[in-house]
Amino acid sequence: MTASKIFRKNIVALCGGVGGAKLALGLSHVLPPEQLTIVVNTGDDFEHLGLKICPDLDTVLYTLAGVNNPETGWGRAEETWSCMEVLEALGSETWFKLGDKDLALHLERAHMLASGQSLSAVTSHFCKQLGVSANVVPMSDDPVRTMIETPEGVLSFQHYFVKEQCAPCVEGFHFEGVTAAHANRAFLNALDDPNLGGIIFCPSNPFVSIGPILELPSIRERIGSLRAPRIAISPIIGGRAVKGPAAKMMHELDLPVSSLAVATHYKGLLDGLIIDQVDASEKVEIERHMASLVCPTLMNTLRDRIDLARSSLDFLKDLT
Amino acid sequence: MTASKIFRKNIVALCGGVGGAKLALGLSHVLPPEQLTIVVNTGDDFEHLGLKICPDLDTVLYTLAGVNNPETGWGRAEETWSCMEVLEALGSETWFKLGDKDLALHLERAHMLASGQSLSAVTSHFCKQLGVSANVVPMSDDPVRTMIETPEGVLSFQHYFVKEQCAPCVEGFHFEGVTAAHANRAFLNALDDPNLGGIIFCPSNPFVSIGPILELPSIRERIGSLRAPRIAISPIIGGRAVKGPAAKMMHELDLPVSSLAVATHYKGLLDGLIIDQVDASEKVEIERHMASLVCPTLMNTLRDRIDLARSSLDFLKDLT
Repeated sequence: MTASKIFRKNIVALCGGVGGAKLALGLSHVLPPEQLTIVVNTGDDFEHLGLKICPDLDTVLYTLAGVNNPETGWGRAEETWSCMEVLEALGSETWFKLGDKDLALHLERAHMLASGQSLSAVTSHFCKQLGVSANVVPMSDDPVRTMIETPEGVLSFQHYFVKEQCAPCVEGFHFEGVTAAHANRAFLNALDDPNLGGIIFCPSNPFVSIGPILELPSIRERIGSLRAPRIAISPIIGGRAVKGPAAKMMHELDLPVSSLAVATHYKGLLDGLIIDQVDASEKVEIERHMASLVCPTLMNTLRDRIDLARSSLDFLKDLT
Repeated sequence: MTASKIFRKNIVALCGGVGGAKLALGLSHVLPPEQLTIVVNTGDDFEHLGLKICPDLDTVLYTLAGVNNPETGWGRAEETWSCMEVLEALGSETWFKLGDKDLALHLERAHMLASGQSLSAVTSHFCKQLGVSANVVPMSDDPVRTMIETPEGVLSFQHYFVKEQCAPCVEGFHFEGVTAAHANRAFLNALDDPNLGGIIFCPSNPFVSIGPILELPSIRERIGSLRAPRIAISPIIGGRAVKGPAAKMMHELDLPVSSLAVATHYKGLLDGLIIDQVDASEKVEIERHMASLVCPTLMNTLRDRIDLARSSLDFLKDLT
């Protein structure tokens, strides 16, 4: 029996979109729902056609509900595009793709938010309706907007990510609204819980997925001073990001594109880093900063996700 | 050559949804765009899931653009329902059916209205994008809400019409906001135009389609005192309404369900009424109130619509 099978403590997972969602799914398979709090980045959120779009939250929801589109990494499987086609004919903005099924979530969320409900309440409602038993919480109910600093000026995240296809060179980041935002109460409670077994930073972009969560008031300090162990899974495998602009950003920020650089980035905040087998040569260097575990981290199948979730829990147990 | 072929004057058509849209299409085939102003009822408009829905305006737009659903009388042809299916799974309100294609119009309209544009400007934009050259104008840019008085209380129009399927007995009507609303400037200009050739009340519900238009400040008086001829096409054929609750309403209001009752309803406001051949026996009685023309009024085909449009223009010419 692996450690995860007898893991009795609560886990907090911080995550962004695709990679984070995959590990969150794995964790939801090996932990009972009440032991897992999945805290999702909302720095990517934006308003589009009057709707509030929460890309990371939706990717996590769809992935846990088993309705995600595995090819794109966003949106729903078996999607239709009738609305988008007519929006185009009407001369509307079409750079951000909204599938017909996906749209239902955005419409209902906009409607519920307008009626005064919090993003947390809406998310919890969607989890219930979609059959997701894990505790998925937005990092904050207050708006935080990730802004990308480039030579062409400051771009909102979706502008940079979708409209500009990550082409502009990244010089830095800031998070509008973050100092005034309140971290989600469920997130804070989970951190304060005496039965907290550890924190897992999912293999998400350190700058624009995990970054905004850490910048919320008191979060970096709380995590930095936790007694429970804290680990990350490196999103860099063999000098590349599995998906998204993490590697390109590291390069543009004059950082080595490596798991070692991820370790350096999180120094003081983590007790351990899980790195892929292809990066095993970095283990010694990484261990000058924190513990490390070498194991397969590429999550192509559900089996891979569950295995990495188990390895993460085992690693946390070893670090306790 | 029929009179309509040499009709050089401007025409104002007042219309609601299905029946009105059919005649509006016929008129748009026989008159040059600049000679036709189609004034559409907005009393049916309502807010749903945070979107502004304009059922009559959309039916007219879709009909003129050739993308309407001829079976339902609302919405678009070749529609898909992906969004609706997910809305249902999310536990959202689903009594009002929103097709995926239809939704695009509502989304873009809500977005344009929120950015400060008027309903007239949005409608004009949609006409252009959908290739509709006729001048389609909402009766007002201000909200007017048709309320149905029933023994069970006052119901908003869509609540009565869609949710309750017109089941409650009608005791009366009122139009919230109508006294404060301004009639559309294009509508007023068309009425004041010295080249006005006549007004046509399309075969729409006299109470809830034409009624709200007439209740706008100054409209009843302006139409009542016009020099140009004013005609209606009776929406009642053989004691029944072609579509919608007009006949049921007349019955519940203790009115005979006949073209004669339509003539009586519009007395003092019209110079003539077009009635169907099956109601030819009412002609003599009707002519105690106004002129009448007997011709086929059922519009099953495009040919029928064009023929009725021509008959209407000929009738106006005769009354000039």
